[in-house]
Amino acid sequence: MSGRVPAAAIDGLIRDCMQAVGLPPPDAAKVAELMVEADLVGADAHGVFRLPQYIRRIKAGGINPKAQIAVEKTGPAVAMVDGDNGMGHLVMSRAAETAAELAKETGVAWVGAKRSNHAGAAGVYAAMPLKHDMVGIYAVVANANHMPVWGSSENLLGTNPVAFAVPAGEEPPVVLDIATTVVSYGTVKANKLQGKPMPEGWMIDKQGKPLTDSAKSGGGLLMPIGGHKGSGLALVLGLLAGTLNGAAFGRDVVDFNNDDSTACDTGHFIIALDVNRFLPVAAFKAAIDRHLRDLKSAEKLPGADAIRLPGEQRLRRRTERLRDGVPVYPEVVELLDKLAGELKVSRLGER
Amino acid sequence: MSGRVPAAAIDGLIRDCMQAVGLPPPDAAKVAELMVEADLVGADAHGVFRLPQYIRRIKAGGINPKAQIAVEKTGPAVAMVDGDNGMGHLVMSRAAETAAELAKETGVAWVGAKRSNHAGAAGVYAAMPLKHDMVGIYAVVANANHMPVWGSSENLLGTNPVAFAVPAGEEPPVVLDIATTVVSYGTVKANKLQGKPMPEGWMIDKQGKPLTDSAKSGGGLLMPIGGHKGSGLALVLGLLAGTLNGAAFGRDVVDFNNDDSTACDTGHFIIALDVNRFLPVAAFKAAIDRHLRDLKSAEKLPGADAIRLPGEQRLRRRTERLRDGVPVYPEVVELLDKLAGELKVSRLGER
Repeated sequence: MSGRVPAAAIDGLIRDCMQAVGLPPPDAAKVAELMVEADLVGADAHGVFRLPQYIRRIKAGGINPKAQIAVEKTGPAVAMVDGDNGMGHLVMSRAAETAAELAKETGVAWVGAKRSNHAGAAGVYAAMPLKHDMVGIYAVVANANHMPVWGSSENLLGTNPVAFAVPAGEEPPVVLDIATTVVSYGTVKANKLQGKPMPEGWMIDKQGKPLTDSAKSGGGLLMPIGGHKGSGLALVLGLLAGTLNGAAFGRDVVDFNNDDSTACDTGHFIIALDVNRFLPVAAFKAAIDRHLRDLKSAEKLPGADAIRLPGEQRLRRRTERLRDGVPVYPEVVELLDKLAGELKVSRLGER
Repeated sequence: MSGRVPAAAIDGLIRDCMQAVGLPPPDAAKVAELMVEADLVGADAHGVFRLPQYIRRIKAGGINPKAQIAVEKTGPAVAMVDGDNGMGHLVMSRAAETAAELAKETGVAWVGAKRSNHAGAAGVYAAMPLKHDMVGIYAVVANANHMPVWGSSENLLGTNPVAFAVPAGEEPPVVLDIATTVVSYGTVKANKLQGKPMPEGWMIDKQGKPLTDSAKSGGGLLMPIGGHKGSGLALVLGLLAGTLNGAAFGRDVVDFNNDDSTACDTGHFIIALDVNRFLPVAAFKAAIDRHLRDLKSAEKLPGADAIRLPGEQRLRRRTERLRDGVPVYPEVVELLDKLAGELKVSRLGER
């Protein structure tokens, strides 16, 4: 059972920890805000859960706490962000703001980022252009390779996720945030921790046989969605988020689970697209609402508990968790308490 | 067994048929060029195979043979193409040219299209910006709904394909062209025609049970790649290619298999992204080549015949088919001969 922790307490803990390892207060506050946002919308593997690892990497020199992020506009609708090896959250929030600013002028913008780090939940960045009545699209090269290219037994691709956000009117905006693998590696790790087997289809071993023993997942190959299709998606997204920005991809990816001190050189991209250049915003939102309602009220498949649209639960969870707190597993609370002790900041329970 | 037909003969047949039903000669030539391109690169379900259906729709008033395609630049980096219900090939080649022109000025461009029609192979359009050393990304709302949204038993989504093209140096460019369903509906139809069962995983019936009898595929539900993930992708791509352009999506989609006379109002989008705004082109291509070679030479999975990268076979097939001819099934040749007779143009064998 997970206890509930007020979002403000999590926010305070993250801010204090980040400041304790050297982030300037405004940067610490921004990282906290975006990590808490991941927790609020239900991207539980990308919120406060990641704090101990981030702090460990900052202390080991793998992430620069005093990063001077530089934005270079390389064309009317494009920009490159050099993250100076700072926290990915800081890099990508700057990139998303830049994309929305440029797109306001040009209709669409594509902003790449290099020398960055893990930025948490993909959907959080894709959703940033929504407040400008813009579509957001985000992708990133994952910080470890857990998937082989189709036909290979060597893990040279990451789960490389992609996220899309589309504004709606009265309905919740559509926010799709997916890895290109059948499950995220976090889910595999969770099964392993709980000693639970994995269903067939998640992983295979290096002989190509189904791997269901989660204790052996370390040597396994994570499977892409749709076979060669998901493999192709992970490849293309990786080339666009990584290689095009001069950032890490393939054999250059640093496995941030096994290495705390080497800079990851994480690459990302974000697109902002101004709805108003295609349709009047009100007409677009009305059309989106109509289609979402059509889908929600479609005939239900026997056995399915509900028709759920991407982003729908996100908004519901956010409201509920702001009111009732964020569920955090006792094991995670324990790790966070230990971290708070080491950094001499107040524990979650004291906030 | 398929016989081999010279590409020039196919090109001539398509041109003559298109002119016979009223397309101006330059438009007929452009459609022929793009349909033959699909046949050459191996998108066999999107080349000359489609000719009888296109001609039937033009004759029935479902497609306008004299379309006046209008391009409206709605911002420095965005444009809308109104297809005037013309052949999708004409609409999308204009859209792709426009995207590359705009991206030359701004770094990236997003061009939407409405009042269009089926345009054949997605990869053909995504690959158009390659000659400008640009990345291309293309998506379209399919012309029939064969997939339910996740949790539903009612087909309100199409196979909505997406294609990406990334320039390379000495290696073949990466061209990924995938439907968001496990297989295309064309593959299902091919199984049905040949009386072959379908493997589990392609379709389910309205009760949620695996559907393997291809004779019953008409009432079946095509499955998305990655469960809710592919369903979400089809939804988001459909909203961006259809709804954002004021084109058909969801309940508004006209099933072009069962209706020859109603305008489809097909929506597409294409993105062109100028590599040079991110990295010098030569450095980018060298990096892409290096990564592609790393992937190709990775450890092979026992049982896999080869590691194949998206786009690799495309180039090989193009060379081979230009030299040896395009394989066309005798059943298709028969249909094309019948069509040639009706339109009083030379048959394939007479060219």
